[in-house]
Amino acid sequence: MKTYRKELWFNTPQRYAILNITGQVESALKESGILEGLILVNAMHITASVFINDDEDGLHKDYLAWLEGLAPHEPTGNYFHNLTGEDNADAHLKRQVMGREVVVAVTNGKLDFGPWEQIFYGEFDGRRLKRVLVKIIGE
Amino acid sequence: MKTYRKELWFNTPQRYAILNITGQVESALKESGILEGLILVNAMHITASVFINDDEDGLHKDYLAWLEGLAPHEPTGNYFHNLTGEDNADAHLKRQVMGREVVVAVTNGKLDFGPWEQIFYGEFDGRRLKRVLVKIIGE
Amino acid sequence: MKTYRKELWFNTPQRYAILNITGQVESALKESGILEGLILVNAMHITASVFINDDEDGLHKDYLAWLEGLAPHEPTGNYFHNLTGEDNADAHLKRQVMGREVVVAVTNGKLDFGPWEQIFYGEFDGRRLKRVLVKIIGE
Repeated sequence: MKTYRKELWFNTPQRYAILNITGQVESALKESGILEGLILVNAMHITASVFINDDEDGLHKDYLAWLEGLAPHEPTGNYFHNLTGEDNADAHLKRQVMGREVVVAVTNGKLDFGPWEQIFYGEFDGRRLKRVLVKIIGE
Repeated sequence: MKTYRKELWFNTPQRYAILNITGQVESALKESGILEGLILVNAMHITASVFINDDEDGLHKDYLAWLEGLAPHEPTGNYFHNLTGEDNADAHLKRQVMGREVVVAVTNGKLDFGPWEQIFYGEFDGRRLKRVLVKIIGE
Repeated sequence: MKTYRKELWFNTPQRYAILNITGQVESALKESGILEGLILVNAMHITASVFINDDEDGLHKDYLAWLEGLAPHEPTGNYFHNLTGEDNADAHLKRQVMGREVVVAVTNGKLDFGPWEQIFYGEFDGRRLKRVLVKIIGE
């Protein structure tokens, strides 16, 4: 069994952002030399998400507007968490809807994806350096 | 280490449907000959879900009604994604609530489940052929 | 390849509770002797969740209030599932938002976590014995 580990770093200029990271995950997979197995891609921060969906700008706008409706940023005083001095309680909630991680099959050295699957980093409290972990196991 | 891969195909007559696929996943596990490891079951399409919950018809109706409240299909013009000519933006949102994939432990050649756990395919934009991927690693 | 399996048992006095189980998962990892691989931690019950977020009491109150808004317990008669005699339909919905499971990388014998990541058991229908499964694969 082989394992491979890589961190990806992000610093989005906006509080909220959705970034396609499929190419970076594919690069990590190539570096690993692993042909068959599983790849885990997870946010290492609890106000961010890694998820799989469509690379379509309109949909990304829909996601951010929808999440804002489900867990509004304002009024920040409505969240107990923000009594700690933070203003990002909404980000902790939004990330639960979108998920922390994805696990993807590796087959013949490639991400074993359907026709439109792409991997995204969902940032809900940006403007600082944050990390995504890629861990691959297989052979 | 052994790996096994299988695709399951579905074509639901309705736009929205919830199908119990536990038996098909168990068949794939038996075919693999793997006794200890992990099994990944994921939708290969971004408007569908694989999730684990209860095989109870009333609950499935509750899920579909609840998801329709969280991310309504109509009015389709309320979603930027539908400007592309699609009418399935709601399906991309619903699938994020229910999740893309499940990872299940394999122990003694069986799905290592609690008393009521069953695996479901959640279809939110059906009426065409779509796939689920089963990938098993272990030995 | 090595595998290791352990069950964690919980019986919360309240219907709703969030418990930090990171220490128990770390103990299981140490017992396994596995240094590199993946660890799956999942609720074995369909009205509970395992998720990763912040160990902050105010945030946990926010989660429970937010989930109650998204999927209210009352009126119980509003859910088809409760026609079976159950009153926990809301718990099946809440658990889908928070997720069934987490998959965590194991690196150098440790949970490969970002600075604030902790693992929680989310109980949405407590007051009885329920289980979490820990399954580790690697070497």
